[in-house]
Amino acid sequence: MITVQEAEALILDNIGQLDSESIPLQQAVGRTLREPIVADRALPPFDRATLDGIALSSSAYNMGNRSFQVQGVIAAGSPPEDLQDQKACFEIMTGAPLPKGADCVLGIEEVDLEEGVAKLKDNLALSFGVGVHDAGSDCEAGATLLEPNVTLTAKEIAIAASVGKSEVLVSKSPRIIVVSTGDELVPIEQKPEVHEIRRSNDLTLSVALQLSGYRDVELLHLTDDPERCETELGSALERCDALVLAGGISKGKFDYIPETLIKLGVAIRFQRVSQRPGKPMWFGQFSQGRARMPVFALPGNPVSCFTCLRRYVIPALRKWSGLPAPKPLYAKLGHDITFKPDITLFLPVSADPRPSSELWVTPTLFNTSGDFVSVAKTDGFIELPRKRSIFPQGEAFRYFDWPQ
Amino acid sequence: MITVQEAEALILDNIGQLDSESIPLQQAVGRTLREPIVADRALPPFDRATLDGIALSSSAYNMGNRSFQVQGVIAAGSPPEDLQDQKACFEIMTGAPLPKGADCVLGIEEVDLEEGVAKLKDNLALSFGVGVHDAGSDCEAGATLLEPNVTLTAKEIAIAASVGKSEVLVSKSPRIIVVSTGDELVPIEQKPEVHEIRRSNDLTLSVALQLSGYRDVELLHLTDDPERCETELGSALERCDALVLAGGISKGKFDYIPETLIKLGVAIRFQRVSQRPGKPMWFGQFSQGRARMPVFALPGNPVSCFTCLRRYVIPALRKWSGLPAPKPLYAKLGHDITFKPDITLFLPVSADPRPSSELWVTPTLFNTSGDFVSVAKTDGFIELPRKRSIFPQGEAFRYFDWPQ
Repeated sequence: MITVQEAEALILDNIGQLDSESIPLQQAVGRTLREPIVADRALPPFDRATLDGIALSSSAYNMGNRSFQVQGVIAAGSPPEDLQDQKACFEIMTGAPLPKGADCVLGIEEVDLEEGVAKLKDNLALSFGVGVHDAGSDCEAGATLLEPNVTLTAKEIAIAASVGKSEVLVSKSPRIIVVSTGDELVPIEQKPEVHEIRRSNDLTLSVALQLSGYRDVELLHLTDDPERCETELGSALERCDALVLAGGISKGKFDYIPETLIKLGVAIRFQRVSQRPGKPMWFGQFSQGRARMPVFALPGNPVSCFTCLRRYVIPALRKWSGLPAPKPLYAKLGHDITFKPDITLFLPVSADPRPSSELWVTPTLFNTSGDFVSVAKTDGFIELPRKRSIFPQGEAFRYFDWPQ
Repeated sequence: MITVQEAEALILDNIGQLDSESIPLQQAVGRTLREPIVADRALPPFDRATLDGIALSSSAYNMGNRSFQVQGVIAAGSPPEDLQDQKACFEIMTGAPLPKGADCVLGIEEVDLEEGVAKLKDNLALSFGVGVHDAGSDCEAGATLLEPNVTLTAKEIAIAASVGKSEVLVSKSPRIIVVSTGDELVPIEQKPEVHEIRRSNDLTLSVALQLSGYRDVELLHLTDDPERCETELGSALERCDALVLAGGISKGKFDYIPETLIKLGVAIRFQRVSQRPGKPMWFGQFSQGRARMPVFALPGNPVSCFTCLRRYVIPALRKWSGLPAPKPLYAKLGHDITFKPDITLFLPVSADPRPSSELWVTPTLFNTSGDFVSVAKTDGFIELPRKRSIFPQGEAFRYFDWPQ
């Protein structure tokens, strides 16, 4: 049995990198950028008024002139204009280009406009550049505005749009097949017999993957029939980029999933991790030409399955798409915990961010790893390391939030 | 001019509540639940094996019996079975129903199985309930598993699925029209003249709304033509549930958006907030039968626009859908800030979560509120309150993360 850290390293070191593709910017939300975004011109591209007012020469004002002839109005989007002389000014709107000869903008509320003449008070603090966003002051043409390997959220898409990138190079969206197994599972719509339960793991995994940015998810349910299972898994391996299985991997008589996967050519990387919940977890890879498809086999127990998805699968998919590891989060334990076994404990917790900026968490009292009802009231889990049995109130441990 | 807190209260107190609708569970990801989810039967519905092993009578073992006749195999999904007598046992798989007469499950690795007989060691800690997830121990039939007014993420959808809720009552998804204005703005694909810039605000707002769970967003661009603007805004008010405008609300000559909205029947709640950036922000409401449609008019400047969306619009949409206010986040300033004006300052920051569980943030040096390039490198912003000018390193302030 390997440790949590060994399992994590075996997955992340073997995951490789997804291929990239060029897609329309509007469709790239949540994808990983795979090219730098470069300024096609200086930003701002012109000296830009930052408020509504009049554009004038600060030196004319500071030399004593208080009366400026209004030569016209410059709206945002107007072509550049020229000041006729130093005693002229333009009315100018936020975002409009400063006219040549002017060097500052005075807010409209400071100006007394009468019969085409702007009258200014004494003692105004007018100097070169006031009210102007200088051309090139945000960046020069050719500057790298975004490095590759970032998630495209609203702000990155804004930058790409501003430099005219209507198509962007991003990581492909992997096609993921989520496989549930077990004859005891019936569809949600069906009334189960007393010994049956409704199937929810596949839907839970698929929703968690969607919320983490992976939308191309197919659900596949296998009943306990080894031959059919082999055919269906073989076909699934051919048509997807990643396989996530829930259940059928324990030591039971009907847990033939691991041997079926191996028979189909999946190379096992590890099986069983010293953790609770989630001990039976399994990871392998399947060669598809140059690429190696990740195959995650998670325990069928809902809490184990959900915890392993968050702890291993989602970070792996992120790295696969080219993202760096996110900064780890830590949280302080709200009360003492004693846990004797020499394995890592994942403990579902409610999060309580404090005005001090600290994050405190309260572990949920829960029954067994089958008690998903209690987990639904939590915000994430903390990871209590092995080789210790006492975890005191106030000590900080790694915290993982559930997908939102 | 009103304060940030007054503006927030005016929006949240007036926002009302979205109508609800019943939709398939699979489509309800990210929606707000509007009904309680109740257990249709006890959970677990039967005494359930939590591991693979043999099911037996602990009292028979503790009375001295060490040899148990294997009566058969019970898989998950098998109908209930009965132990013939106290010296019999069943092989049992995780998730299977415990047979009548048995009261515990012993892991398969502890058992010596030979010719249909399970031989057990001495000194096993076998007692009533070991290896069994008791029927009804998670909840009784009729128990409320989820209260209304929570977001449906993976774990809530798992609970709903487990009790057979294939349709759920949720808040409607509001149709939001994002309106951009200004003749200076050209489409992303177009090469702008020197005095023009590419349109990105509408796309930024739409992506940020999508990432916050609001997917029904239409983009509408208005050029600077008051008559056409009135027609288009009038039509927009008729066909959407919320309007978010970017630009055209300053004091400039071409900023006729507020008066057009008022002419169309939008009741103004406030205009101008003592904040930087985002001072010109405007909020109103339009009566549509019983409902009041929110109309947010945000400054056209990209940083102001994005900040106001996060600070006001997204919390308002959340409350509108029925969600309680999230727990506020706080972060500690990485260095001293001095800011003299008696207005609230929203300062973009990079976040640095520490192993102590504290969240520290570093303000970005940025140019003007037009400098979106610097903002793209940040994780959110902090809110520095008015009536103060010195904000020392290490003090914690409200933190808002950008939509992800």
